[in-house]
Amino acid sequence: MQIKPASKNQIKKRKKLLGGKYRNKEKLFLAEGLRAVQQISDNGVIDVIEIFIEEGFDTKAVPVQNIPVFSASANDFAAISDTESPQGIIAVCKIPNQAEPNSLLNNDGVILAFDAIQDPGNLGTMIRTAAWFDVKGLLMGTGTVDPFHPKVVRSTAGATGAAPVISGDLDGILEKFEEKGWSVFLMDGSPESISLDRIKVPAKSIVIIGNEGSGISEKIYRGSRKKIKIEGRGLSVESLNASIACAIALYRFC
Amino acid sequence: MQIKPASKNQIKKRKKLLGGKYRNKEKLFLAEGLRAVQQISDNGVIDVIEIFIEEGFDTKAVPVQNIPVFSASANDFAAISDTESPQGIIAVCKIPNQAEPNSLLNNDGVILAFDAIQDPGNLGTMIRTAAWFDVKGLLMGTGTVDPFHPKVVRSTAGATGAAPVISGDLDGILEKFEEKGWSVFLMDGSPESISLDRIKVPAKSIVIIGNEGSGISEKIYRGSRKKIKIEGRGLSVESLNASIACAIALYRFC
Repeated sequence: MQIKPASKNQIKKRKKLLGGKYRNKEKLFLAEGLRAVQQISDNGVIDVIEIFIEEGFDTKAVPVQNIPVFSASANDFAAISDTESPQGIIAVCKIPNQAEPNSLLNNDGVILAFDAIQDPGNLGTMIRTAAWFDVKGLLMGTGTVDPFHPKVVRSTAGATGAAPVISGDLDGILEKFEEKGWSVFLMDGSPESISLDRIKVPAKSIVIIGNEGSGISEKIYRGSRKKIKIEGRGLSVESLNASIACAIALYRFC
Repeated sequence: MQIKPASKNQIKKRKKLLGGKYRNKEKLFLAEGLRAVQQISDNGVIDVIEIFIEEGFDTKAVPVQNIPVFSASANDFAAISDTESPQGIIAVCKIPNQAEPNSLLNNDGVILAFDAIQDPGNLGTMIRTAAWFDVKGLLMGTGTVDPFHPKVVRSTAGATGAAPVISGDLDGILEKFEEKGWSVFLMDGSPESISLDRIKVPAKSIVIIGNEGSGISEKIYRGSRKKIKIEGRGLSVESLNASIACAIALYRFC
């Protein structure tokens, strides 16, 4: 493996990928840490175009072959890192193309939908859990944090890109799926919601997770969409964390 | 409600509670944010001894009665806050006494045990989930982050103190419970572990969650303790987040 020194210009250019605007323009994102880079490389869905390592990083550990590797000083490396304690390796990756609803409509399985999820750690953890349970697609409703935000990517533990992503107006996307026989379930802790334990899981199911504070938007509550909840036994806490509720629902549905 | 200005000396003293050493010495901890303070107050398990509010905070929103309330400038308030964007209210609370194994041994139900959990957010989220499912106790094995660390307290969303806590050498504590008929389950993703779906849940069950990186310590694997796992379907991610695995296990056990 040939390793070249990273130029100041390269660092300056890649550092911009920490911001959403530039990510969208360049169609590139950064994945940080050995485990994430390894997993993304193993999955083979995401194209890795170059690797940065910090001086002193064990070059034998670089998991990707035939891709330019650049070595950066600790300072330069910290500039393109999103973490307080950088882990010595960052991959520059291509943002995959959006999926088309048509490519998923005729499948069976579970699709996970997000309505304005704001916390990057929550979104990343849910993408990771979704990959574990092999969900067929992810619907990113308007207002949801960018799935290629560095904190999201880190929380996915390499599952970024594992499932096809469709972004846009959630209500409109859901309609297309419902026309093809998909059932829609809204995670909602209200007393009148149906308990998750009692659901008969249809072959084509979409599960929606709402915003951490305000839940699912009002306009999504319509038609034959069903509100479901996770029965709590304790009275000493008001709700579950969004990524926890999501995980329990996926366990039940998958 | 009478509100007095907080003195510099008070701020200096309470700021020390952000550190573990001083928390243990004073047997006090800080709970931050309106929701957490409200929930802790509603639960009535934890004694709140005083409240700090930031100047401008709506005093009518203070959820605790008959407790001294002190108003602090934005700067002083930030000094006792653990967050980047303080939420305007912090309660000083008494750390409850440790529970004795004897007080739990003869109950039925589920107990959750932590072996060297390191991430405060993970621990707090698991304490919150445990409260939701009404677990009967929490065993904090040596090496687990302090449950009264401000980040842990924040992640519990007010569930801090809801379940009795026993801290110490996990193996020794488990033995006491096993002598009284409790079954011990180790969350472990190894292929040879039994799938969670196949477990018959005993009336007295202890579920152990291991360290985020290295899992459960070797010495815990012995006797009739059973390794259990959450069956994954996807191949694009290696494992689940610890708090996610914990939540799915509690859903199944509770």
